[in-house]
Amino acid sequence: MAPGPGFSDEKNETLCESESTVYVHNPHLDGMKDDILYHFNLGTSTHNLPAMFGDVKFVCVGGSPWRMKSFIEYIAGELSLEDPKAEYPNICAGTDRYAMYKIGPVLSVSHGMGIPSIAIMLHELIKLLYHARCTDVTIFRIGTSGGLGLEPGTVVVTKQSVDATFLPRLEQVILGNTVVRSTDLDQGLAEELLQCSMDLGQFETVIGNTMCTMDFYEGQARLDGAFCSYTEKDKQDYLTKAYESGVRNIEMESSVFAAMCKLSGLKAAVVCVTLLDRQKGDQLISSHEVLHSYQQRPQILVGHLIKKMLQTSASSRS
Amino acid sequence: MAPGPGFSDEKNETLCESESTVYVHNPHLDGMKDDILYHFNLGTSTHNLPAMFGDVKFVCVGGSPWRMKSFIEYIAGELSLEDPKAEYPNICAGTDRYAMYKIGPVLSVSHGMGIPSIAIMLHELIKLLYHARCTDVTIFRIGTSGGLGLEPGTVVVTKQSVDATFLPRLEQVILGNTVVRSTDLDQGLAEELLQCSMDLGQFETVIGNTMCTMDFYEGQARLDGAFCSYTEKDKQDYLTKAYESGVRNIEMESSVFAAMCKLSGLKAAVVCVTLLDRQKGDQLISSHEVLHSYQQRPQILVGHLIKKMLQTSASSRS
Repeated sequence: MAPGPGFSDEKNETLCESESTVYVHNPHLDGMKDDILYHFNLGTSTHNLPAMFGDVKFVCVGGSPWRMKSFIEYIAGELSLEDPKAEYPNICAGTDRYAMYKIGPVLSVSHGMGIPSIAIMLHELIKLLYHARCTDVTIFRIGTSGGLGLEPGTVVVTKQSVDATFLPRLEQVILGNTVVRSTDLDQGLAEELLQCSMDLGQFETVIGNTMCTMDFYEGQARLDGAFCSYTEKDKQDYLTKAYESGVRNIEMESSVFAAMCKLSGLKAAVVCVTLLDRQKGDQLISSHEVLHSYQQRPQILVGHLIKKMLQTSASSRS
Repeated sequence: MAPGPGFSDEKNETLCESESTVYVHNPHLDGMKDDILYHFNLGTSTHNLPAMFGDVKFVCVGGSPWRMKSFIEYIAGELSLEDPKAEYPNICAGTDRYAMYKIGPVLSVSHGMGIPSIAIMLHELIKLLYHARCTDVTIFRIGTSGGLGLEPGTVVVTKQSVDATFLPRLEQVILGNTVVRSTDLDQGLAEELLQCSMDLGQFETVIGNTMCTMDFYEGQARLDGAFCSYTEKDKQDYLTKAYESGVRNIEMESSVFAAMCKLSGLKAAVVCVTLLDRQKGDQLISSHEVLHSYQQRPQILVGHLIKKMLQTSASSRS
């Protein structure tokens, strides 16, 4: 187990001073002979994790397995790493819980929908990066969201992930007790993404707060769920308060993503496109083609930044 | 919209007195021209939902898409409805959020992992059953879980779904306010499932409380997550308290399943096999074959009850 920042660590002594490792904070892991990453169908005794993943510098996660496969195909092209014959096999093919793809230094992993689903994936991903002795890893969540006061198709890079009462925190229950964790994200990385959007000039991108909810219907003040006990005015009042507090979009995974990445020392950003303006409606009535083109925007933005960061690091080495 | 029990409803007047409909509780739905069930890729104006689903009497839901396809193949055989040429197409093939299969009166739907993921699916499933004018629907969740004080492979039929403080409730945040919902399940249905297990005599089944958590690692007192700030003794003390309160297994979806089925008038049961005894360990070290055979037990039990209920209803009609 790697100690937290400020502790010495034998393994770290072999690293350059500027390199940062992926931290686990669990004294029990070192005593385990084997670590089975059950939901990935991977393990330390069945797989050579350093050989498989040791070169990973970028991880991109998103809800849908299809989208994460499409991301790896896209980034392979952007980084000129594509092989026309390549099939990009799903590394987690032995399970249908998550899908995982890799090309060069980029790993792409699906996480399903909601905080519990992404939390399971992140526990196992952080352990995977730790076991593989990865360093200097940057992680992005690319996703879809409902927007507030924005044209559909606008990309929101999250400043702070806030809960349904607009506070930047995640409440987790551990041994029956509520623990509050910070949902801070890397502000420098958010600014770099905004700059990338300006470089590209293809679509609007803003930095704003993202509200992370436990439910898509009642939890996001939608009027079209199976149950709804409030009025259109109640909905609008709530969304107006959210907007006034700085919320620009609503999704279901950012808070635990921010909290867990912060705890493990991963530089992290959340990049979600807005599929509709929630103050104007609840249902996704845009055509399949329009929604599909919106969904590509986060991957274009993140792909551009990864390319730029790899070019910078190559030129600083030469 | 169908009114709640105790209200008159024009549509209901055409039904037999003994038939019960699936209720939505949302006055806004009637004003909608079209209802897009986005995460199923289905809708009222694009699909004839009564023709597609009007005959559904049983719904079986579970986390994994593979397992729900395997369930429909299994139940087709049990009910002698199988067609050797049948492919059992995924009705939600246009999306990768959920998978859905149907044979005769049985619908099988995947729900992913965690409360938010199953809640999205249930909102859309309840609306689907309502739009399709289904009556007398019984719903089962089949799944896997960690056991307490039980031999691995034991099936637990849930008496009450309790939260991480062992209380039978679900807290949901609606418009920023916390709402508490009951997680009662149908006790008669649970007893019928226990009787089926005795009829079958293939594996142990018990009725007990199920703890539903928001996280698989810290939320279930595991020592093998990326983060762990408690000792083995803290873990054991917590699990002992859970056991003493009546908890026999731990999973991540039962509370919102119970709450939403109760609100919509669906007769519901939760049937999960225990893959390990959590008081003896955290990791799933049993072989793939053993875990696979355990996972078939809930489907065998539910399949047996569906067959029995269909035989009873056929003989009462003749």
